Amino acid sequence: MTQRKHSVSAFFRSLALLALLAVGAPAQAQTDPLPSWSDGAAKKAIVEFVQATTTQGSPKFVPTAERIATFDQDGTLWVEHPMYSQVMYCLERVPAVVKAKPELANVEPFKTVMSGNREAIAKLPMQDLEKLLAATLSGMSVDTFKAEVGKWLDTARDPRWKRPYTELTYLPMQEVLKYLRDNGYKTYIVTGGGQDFVRVYAEKTYGIPPEQVVGSAGGTKYGYDKSGKPFLTKEPKLLLNDNNAGKPEGIHLMIGRRPYAAFGNSPGDQQMLEYTGAGDGARLMMLVLHDDAKREYAYGPATGLPATKVGAFTQQLYDEAKKKGWTVISMKNDWKKIFAFE
Amino acid sequence: MTQRKHSVSAFFRSLALLALLAVGAPAQAQTDPLPSWSDGAAKKAIVEFVQATTTQGSPKFVPTAERIATFDQDGTLWVEHPMYSQVMYCLERVPAVVKAKPELANVEPFKTVMSGNREAIAKLPMQDLEKLLAATLSGMSVDTFKAEVGKWLDTARDPRWKRPYTELTYLPMQEVLKYLRDNGYKTYIVTGGGQDFVRVYAEKTYGIPPEQVVGSAGGTKYGYDKSGKPFLTKEPKLLLNDNNAGKPEGIHLMIGRRPYAAFGNSPGDQQMLEYTGAGDGARLMMLVLHDDAKREYAYGPATGLPATKVGAFTQQLYDEAKKKGWTVISMKNDWKKIFAFE
Repeated sequence: MTQRKHSVSAFFRSLALLALLAVGAPAQAQTDPLPSWSDGAAKKAIVEFVQATTTQGSPKFVPTAERIATFDQDGTLWVEHPMYSQVMYCLERVPAVVKAKPELANVEPFKTVMSGNREAIAKLPMQDLEKLLAATLSGMSVDTFKAEVGKWLDTARDPRWKRPYTELTYLPMQEVLKYLRDNGYKTYIVTGGGQDFVRVYAEKTYGIPPEQVVGSAGGTKYGYDKSGKPFLTKEPKLLLNDNNAGKPEGIHLMIGRRPYAAFGNSPGDQQMLEYTGAGDGARLMMLVLHDDAKREYAYGPATGLPATKVGAFTQQLYDEAKKKGWTVISMKNDWKKIFAFE
Repeated sequence: MTQRKHSVSAFFRSLALLALLAVGAPAQAQTDPLPSWSDGAAKKAIVEFVQATTTQGSPKFVPTAERIATFDQDGTLWVEHPMYSQVMYCLERVPAVVKAKPELANVEPFKTVMSGNREAIAKLPMQDLEKLLAATLSGMSVDTFKAEVGKWLDTARDPRWKRPYTELTYLPMQEVLKYLRDNGYKTYIVTGGGQDFVRVYAEKTYGIPPEQVVGSAGGTKYGYDKSGKPFLTKEPKLLLNDNNAGKPEGIHLMIGRRPYAAFGNSPGDQQMLEYTGAGDGARLMMLVLHDDAKREYAYGPATGLPATKVGAFTQQLYDEAKKKGWTVISMKNDWKKIFAFE
């Protein structure tokens, strides 16, 4: 019996060894994890960071449980020009809101939006925009909201590429997300956009589950329908404005750990990068610079063009990056390919 | 070449098959995942739920990404009598607060707490308790808070067992956490207690990382120290009161998915269990009943004793559980062992 046990156990030991070899084999033939990136400082910074923090015995090794990487969304993971997709959603929802409440047709800002006059819409003051956000993003159950956003995403098209917004993600950034995850990092979106809005598509679009999406978040109210079934209603009350200082505050609230890597593209991301960089050990802070007018857009410093309303990567942010040693990603020079569909 | 490729690929295929067999082998010899549970309705409900939701081809199969289980903490995962550990922390922090601000020594409620008169302390009105919470849980950096709670936990002892609070977790519930995780569930704490407080020990005590602790949460404020290094200060502003309706609201805010399983022990957990139960497919709702005066405590229904201030498992909740088909866990009958140290 003992003899037989030994040989069985020896058999399984050999098997385990062989299995290890089998797993090891593809690793030797490992292909470039970032094929859409040109060789350069940006790609090098990412690869060196991953190697330093995930190689056993490295002085900057980070235990798997602590491997957190945060990504801004609009302008960092996908196109934000000419307007945030969520703002497009709000504007396109207005007819349905007015249909449900016809008395709004002659009330501002609904009247202007219904007129279709783009110039006038672009000039709406912030408080009018807030009214639109409140009317289109709250006052319904979280399930209804999710279904409506899902339906909109299926049909809405970006005005330039005539494609669903969810196809306008940057292939090089998708590679970074995957590369980090393959190396034990939990990838989070930390967006100024609406948390519930981004959660609708983040899993399918980026492989990022709802619980790893941190965004500007409103309150909800728990209640019951006529049959006694409980549901949550979206309230117009803002709990977290996930921009600027709100990003590290939101990270503390929702994650409770300081990230080791953070990616952004605008002054709204500056505090997240500062907060990340203030930690010990290896930290990776990167900013996407939109300097490719031909393949995407060019705005902000190093482009000769002024920062625009959205994604205003300013000269001040650029200077800050240089001073703090953050790595600026040039879309034009660092990315061989911008979209998967190219 | 082709021939050789084929034989190599055939070799790896056989290897994969053998490896599967090897992985399958220990499964046959699988031991009881819940050894501290007596056979009965409660244990059966847990095992059947896990089998129904994780067996491929089961009509109630749940994809891994959606497997979320939420646990109340005080009274569900560990002892809450005679007082929540966090309240003990606040009371024990008062001398340090008064030392830093001597003018508080003659101001209520600090004066009463400093007197050490337990009866008077127990009678402090809610607004006084809130003053204590604000003074001991906010106004410092999140790092200082974490360090202070950690230091306190190392030395504080439960008055009955004379052991660190972190040893007073229920072994059967630790087994449930592990069993669910081994079956692809993400386990969350959803506590009325302070989120930052529980996060200090949840990873070490339960294997639950900070990002999977949802609790009552205050705001933080981002700022810079003299050297320009950024840090977060805990503010007295309450963002989420994670009790009652606040539990499903907090789950939506922090997780964004409805749980498949939820465990609680008091009316503060009722809405979380309702919300969980309102989902489709298999759902598991369980309530821990404290009916073991000898090994732990007995309070609430089925004990003949009135519900106490803490963890008031009421007759109303008990009736609700019966009506909705939630499973009540009797500590006395369902748990062979309560603590690991027994």
